[in-house]
Amino acid sequence: MSELMTRAGALDAADELAGVRKQFVLDEVVYLDGNSLGALPANVPGHVEDVVRRQWGELRIRSWDESGWWTAPERIGDRIAPLVGAAPGQIVVGDSTSVNVFKALVAAVRMADSAGAAGSAGSAGSAGAVGSAGVAGSAGSGRDEILVDATTFPTDGYIAESAARMTGRTLRPVTPTEVPGALSDRTAAVLLNHVDYRTGRLHDLPSLTAAVHAAGAVAVWDLCHSAGALPVGLDEHGVDLAVGCTYKYLNGGPGSPAYLYVRRDLQDRFDSPLPGWNSHAEPFGMRPAFEPAAGALRGRVGTPDILSMLALEAALEVWDGVRIEAVRAKSLALTDFFLECVAAYVPEGRVELVTPVAHSERGSQVALRCDDAGDVMKRLIERGVVGDFRHPDVLRFGFTPLYVGFADVERAARVLGEVLR
Amino acid sequence: MSELMTRAGALDAADELAGVRKQFVLDEVVYLDGNSLGALPANVPGHVEDVVRRQWGELRIRSWDESGWWTAPERIGDRIAPLVGAAPGQIVVGDSTSVNVFKALVAAVRMADSAGAAGSAGSAGSAGAVGSAGVAGSAGSGRDEILVDATTFPTDGYIAESAARMTGRTLRPVTPTEVPGALSDRTAAVLLNHVDYRTGRLHDLPSLTAAVHAAGAVAVWDLCHSAGALPVGLDEHGVDLAVGCTYKYLNGGPGSPAYLYVRRDLQDRFDSPLPGWNSHAEPFGMRPAFEPAAGALRGRVGTPDILSMLALEAALEVWDGVRIEAVRAKSLALTDFFLECVAAYVPEGRVELVTPVAHSERGSQVALRCDDAGDVMKRLIERGVVGDFRHPDVLRFGFTPLYVGFADVERAARVLGEVLR
Repeated sequence: MSELMTRAGALDAADELAGVRKQFVLDEVVYLDGNSLGALPANVPGHVEDVVRRQWGELRIRSWDESGWWTAPERIGDRIAPLVGAAPGQIVVGDSTSVNVFKALVAAVRMADSAGAAGSAGSAGSAGAVGSAGVAGSAGSGRDEILVDATTFPTDGYIAESAARMTGRTLRPVTPTEVPGALSDRTAAVLLNHVDYRTGRLHDLPSLTAAVHAAGAVAVWDLCHSAGALPVGLDEHGVDLAVGCTYKYLNGGPGSPAYLYVRRDLQDRFDSPLPGWNSHAEPFGMRPAFEPAAGALRGRVGTPDILSMLALEAALEVWDGVRIEAVRAKSLALTDFFLECVAAYVPEGRVELVTPVAHSERGSQVALRCDDAGDVMKRLIERGVVGDFRHPDVLRFGFTPLYVGFADVERAARVLGEVLR
Repeated sequence: MSELMTRAGALDAADELAGVRKQFVLDEVVYLDGNSLGALPANVPGHVEDVVRRQWGELRIRSWDESGWWTAPERIGDRIAPLVGAAPGQIVVGDSTSVNVFKALVAAVRMADSAGAAGSAGSAGSAGAVGSAGVAGSAGSGRDEILVDATTFPTDGYIAESAARMTGRTLRPVTPTEVPGALSDRTAAVLLNHVDYRTGRLHDLPSLTAAVHAAGAVAVWDLCHSAGALPVGLDEHGVDLAVGCTYKYLNGGPGSPAYLYVRRDLQDRFDSPLPGWNSHAEPFGMRPAFEPAAGALRGRVGTPDILSMLALEAALEVWDGVRIEAVRAKSLALTDFFLECVAAYVPEGRVELVTPVAHSERGSQVALRCDDAGDVMKRLIERGVVGDFRHPDVLRFGFTPLYVGFADVERAARVLGEVLR
């Protein structure tokens, strides 16, 4: 047994989260793609069966009340809240990440129009009301620009382009490091990723949010690659709006609904571009005029997708008793150990590290540039190590602290070395 | 046994669809709320279990290809297509009805701007490309109005208001019968309901669509209360865009994903306000610039909600071998018989019929105005007859021809008579 294998064993033995793994359905495969689709929590199948057979099949329409279907979006939002550092009542679950980016960014532009700086006017929400601000083509505030992370997962960029077009703003793509220099009194809103989907780089949410606020603009964060992997601190850092998916580190299942965070003091000014009947103050009043609900419910749109939503609710039970700080500590230990094993096993010069070495700049994945990455990933998968390939030349390995152990890490790096030799 | 009970027995014995009922999970309750949430098809629980345990739990990320997850939105769209009279390749499933109304109505306004009449320029699509038309605030075509059904289920009205605001148009609510008189060269698009959610009134889709086209505008239909209950004939009648939910007469489950129809020759001009990565020509190319996919895929947005979507796919199997014309014939027979039984059992003057008597104006539900409707519905449900109540004074009874029989109808009317006596 190699020294690294021995080390892996010792690290696993000392891992306070090691026991969580048994709450997932796993096999002999080293699954390093939980940053794309989280593994199945073992309690989900039974819960889904109950939702289908009893709640739908037997109670049918009564389940909207009796099984708590109607209130699921905000109830499950409250379950996600502690994982991203949010007090209750600020998150609703529903729709895809793309749709939530649209809601958040359009609402952010309207906030910037309606009352100047969001960050510097923390109490404006109590007096503010949804008005006619943000009408197509107007930029009464003079804030005619939206900044977007130029390195973003593409959907955020496409949706931001649409949000800009539909609010009469100009979209300006800049890298996150360029944001402070690009901010001005023309900036309405800024859409940023907490962790870069490709490189795994962790961006500095507290300081970037503060810079956005100092410029009087509204900060929108995409948490897809950070929520469930590291502390986010939405409330602590005064983030205005945030979105995220639930099928990566939150293990909600394929295409499970996304979520939207609206900071409490901004909720009265959250003016949604998708004011569906679920966001009405009195949804069953069937009133022709729209009157927005109070609070986070304002972020709801249409009828919630119950099967997927309740599968997510069950999946979130694995977090009971898990501290996100412990998850972060293990995540960094896993990626550190992976880098060490890669250095030991992979021939010099065969891969190039894309992910930052500094802990403060690293999420929970490691990306390696590699000439024939697509082919290499195929061979890894054939040998039981599942990561993924991102065009054109990146191998991505995601480390989910709830179910990936150090022996997995050592094996993954060893197999990678064999494949590349 | 009363004459009506005998008649019910004879009608059930002659019903060519009677055998379909055994494909659903049903009990002693007379379930007349399938126009709100369809009953559970018996094959769904096993299919969902396979999706959760094997496709997600064992194959995990591989299922995006190997289990056909990625192509589910268009595959299931093609399964819905024959039920609404559409050839393949024109429907995608995903998102809520509200979100699809937004996509359809904004795209309709942009179509009206980009190339004049949709109906009178059927071949324009082949040459048209998505351009800058429809930019916030512009109405270059002079078509500055959107007409919306003033009696619509509220969400369509709220979303239409947002679509109007974000495209710089004026929203003008009119009743469907007023539409022909309200159309003009100022009309960009018209959003109508095929069947009214409250009254059960069936609107004349062919003639209204023709009138919209004659005015050079784009017709968007909401099929929530007609699809699966009667023939729609989207292709035959030249409908431009349509949306619908799948949890009513299509029995897809609570909050199952909605669908969007874009007529083939308009697809090149479908310019979505929600251009997520799933609607990109090369979604895994991860390109910063948006380039729309060809065909109906352009209506996709974010990652599809697989659990709910594949439950719907299984649910649609009950339609194998079922002719929608037979469904319509039975639906009319059911509602005719219900009206006859209500006349026989319910004390004179106690309820007032809201639903039209003429077959050509009736969907698959019967709405009765009744003073204490909320309380009456509670007592009906206690006695095993499940319909629903719509504010302020309407009793709604939906007749799902796939699993409601004539004996159910007789019993429902009889219990209603007892409750109202």
